[in-house]
Amino acid sequence: MKLDLPKGNAAIGQSGGPTAVINESLVGCVKALRKFTQVKKILGMRHGVNGLVKDQLVDLGRMNKEHLEKVATTPSAALGSSRDKPDAEYCQQILAACQKHKIRYFFYIGGNDSSDTCRIVNELAHTSGYDMRCFHVPKTVDNDLMMSDHCPGFPSAARFLAQAFMSDSLDNASLPGVKINVVMGRHAGFLTAAAALARGEGKDADRNGPHLIYLPEVPFESERFLADVERVYSRLGRCQVAVSEGIQNAAGAPVVTTLVQGLDRDTHGNVQLSGVAALGDALADLVKKNVKTASGAAVRVRADTFGYLQRCWPDPSPIDSAEARAVGKFAVQLAMKGELSGSVAIIRKSSKPYRSDLKHIELGDVAGKTKHMPPEFIDGHCNVSKAFIKYCRPLVGELPEMVRI
Amino acid sequence: MKLDLPKGNAAIGQSGGPTAVINESLVGCVKALRKFTQVKKILGMRHGVNGLVKDQLVDLGRMNKEHLEKVATTPSAALGSSRDKPDAEYCQQILAACQKHKIRYFFYIGGNDSSDTCRIVNELAHTSGYDMRCFHVPKTVDNDLMMSDHCPGFPSAARFLAQAFMSDSLDNASLPGVKINVVMGRHAGFLTAAAALARGEGKDADRNGPHLIYLPEVPFESERFLADVERVYSRLGRCQVAVSEGIQNAAGAPVVTTLVQGLDRDTHGNVQLSGVAALGDALADLVKKNVKTASGAAVRVRADTFGYLQRCWPDPSPIDSAEARAVGKFAVQLAMKGELSGSVAIIRKSSKPYRSDLKHIELGDVAGKTKHMPPEFIDGHCNVSKAFIKYCRPLVGELPEMVRI
Repeated sequence: MKLDLPKGNAAIGQSGGPTAVINESLVGCVKALRKFTQVKKILGMRHGVNGLVKDQLVDLGRMNKEHLEKVATTPSAALGSSRDKPDAEYCQQILAACQKHKIRYFFYIGGNDSSDTCRIVNELAHTSGYDMRCFHVPKTVDNDLMMSDHCPGFPSAARFLAQAFMSDSLDNASLPGVKINVVMGRHAGFLTAAAALARGEGKDADRNGPHLIYLPEVPFESERFLADVERVYSRLGRCQVAVSEGIQNAAGAPVVTTLVQGLDRDTHGNVQLSGVAALGDALADLVKKNVKTASGAAVRVRADTFGYLQRCWPDPSPIDSAEARAVGKFAVQLAMKGELSGSVAIIRKSSKPYRSDLKHIELGDVAGKTKHMPPEFIDGHCNVSKAFIKYCRPLVGELPEMVRI
Repeated sequence: MKLDLPKGNAAIGQSGGPTAVINESLVGCVKALRKFTQVKKILGMRHGVNGLVKDQLVDLGRMNKEHLEKVATTPSAALGSSRDKPDAEYCQQILAACQKHKIRYFFYIGGNDSSDTCRIVNELAHTSGYDMRCFHVPKTVDNDLMMSDHCPGFPSAARFLAQAFMSDSLDNASLPGVKINVVMGRHAGFLTAAAALARGEGKDADRNGPHLIYLPEVPFESERFLADVERVYSRLGRCQVAVSEGIQNAAGAPVVTTLVQGLDRDTHGNVQLSGVAALGDALADLVKKNVKTASGAAVRVRADTFGYLQRCWPDPSPIDSAEARAVGKFAVQLAMKGELSGSVAIIRKSSKPYRSDLKHIELGDVAGKTKHMPPEFIDGHCNVSKAFIKYCRPLVGELPEMVRI
């Protein structure tokens, strides 16, 4: 730690997929920075480091408080986001832009790629003798950052999914059939797992959907999937399925490529099928062709791919809003204390009532690493464990009560 | 009108696609029927007339009030719904079941098919001399019933869509590209049109999405669509599109069949593409192949098909909840007044503040008919008019405020 704090400007950027609460982190940073006397200007990068290297910066120091609070509760990255994954040369440009704009404090709100950008820029600054402190502010609906109990953005997306599966399970009970819902999360199954919260804890919990949950962490087998659907359908006359967009077969190949391979090579029409909607349709088709009712009739099968609504729905988890704000503030406080770099982890202190603390971790602890659903959160090949429910339930806030006749 | 009211039982059913407020109508009926001394039992049909003819009936007269109120605020048809479109023989079975169960009052909550079932059963009862009074209680997210200002279920689905497009427009602004969202409504464009509410009325209204809106009422031309996307993209660097699942070409063919026709005949793979997700993917593919950035680079294109979440999202419009309750009650009051049959229309008295009345209409006024977006609600080939906004805005309730930097 180095308490001789440099005077200069601060820059903040947002990166990766937006979330419902990523602007809480932005506003948490900005408000804390305003109290930081070493900081002159607070510069917002338009579309992350892409805007930084192109001089597309916005002065956040002068924005009035009322507007700032409205930004905080607005979903999606207010500064604009970026999917750029800077290489060594790009990072040199970032450093040059920081020097040009006298940026001494660098804050980057994002996932594991963003923390890696932070790490590289931080090292470059250090080796070139430029005193700049780089901090990563965690954000990802995928919940796949190491060291942290969970990631800002995840609880709100999990809240959306819990409500989506609750409503959709009643829709499926109303017009029975097999319903397949494809959930975000290419590598980690946390969001798909959150669908399980829709079952509730009442007497209907084991009748309520989702009845089957397929995670990217568990190899997917089509034959076993069909047997699962048939088993549930014959018991309940319906079946609601939660499936991660990232499910893989035993060889590690994405299931969507194994089911729709012929279509990628199709060149005679206008249509080149792409995107995740194809997985839901392909699985629905598989069920239509292979699962019949007891009397041999066709089963009603539908698929929905929940898509981008999951990450920015304007009904955030209150805990998520508060924590997202707090991690932004905490990162600035680390800088004020003289820390040279770092990221922030959320440490759970208790689940009932829910309480958490924040902790300073190293950039290298999170940079470029992916956390997966741990084995204790997974129950068999198509369910989550009670431990996962216990972990996830406190994060999403109050859920509507839904009753059946 | 015949004030000599028969004594007997009442039956209530729910039919067609469920909505967020269809149980309000159910509870509105049940609570009103409890005050109706001529009625002995209040029977709920499981899965509409399907349950009636199979003796799957549930006694709604004894359910306690607290449970009933929880049912009212639960989305999706609590009795179960049905897609059956009864023919003459089926309607004979319905009448026979009504006679067997001494049903003198028949209430059917649903869309235009359900009102047609009501009409046929009513006529059969009349010609066979069985005194039974049949009432249709309107419900449809499609908003396509004649005679009514709007239909219960539509305001809540419109509210979902307004919020979905608001959030998604910010997502699209954050990571710019072309975003295509496919909306429910096979024949009528009201729901797709409701996306326009996402623009708001502030200074950003003409920058906010949706930038293009394609309705089933306006013939869709692929070349014109591509030119539209290119025009918006070159102006804003992004483009959010609302498209109805039911868009048709000039010859009246669904666009999805013109774009993915080759795939329907594909028999060599496991995948038979089906469902509406294919339309979004096909349109996205069309844009990918034909629209480039100013520098000739590929444009980021994504499609989401909002699917079933639209109709049962657990955040109903308060006006919709109240009106759905009221139409159920009103239908029972018609019966109590001695009316022999009918449906209920919502008549708007004023928009600011919003006020409405209910009106008794004939079953034949709505049965089997479809209302489309009137020409005054449509602006050109890819937008809605101010008149539509004025019509729709009061129905959806308060929307979150979202601000940009």
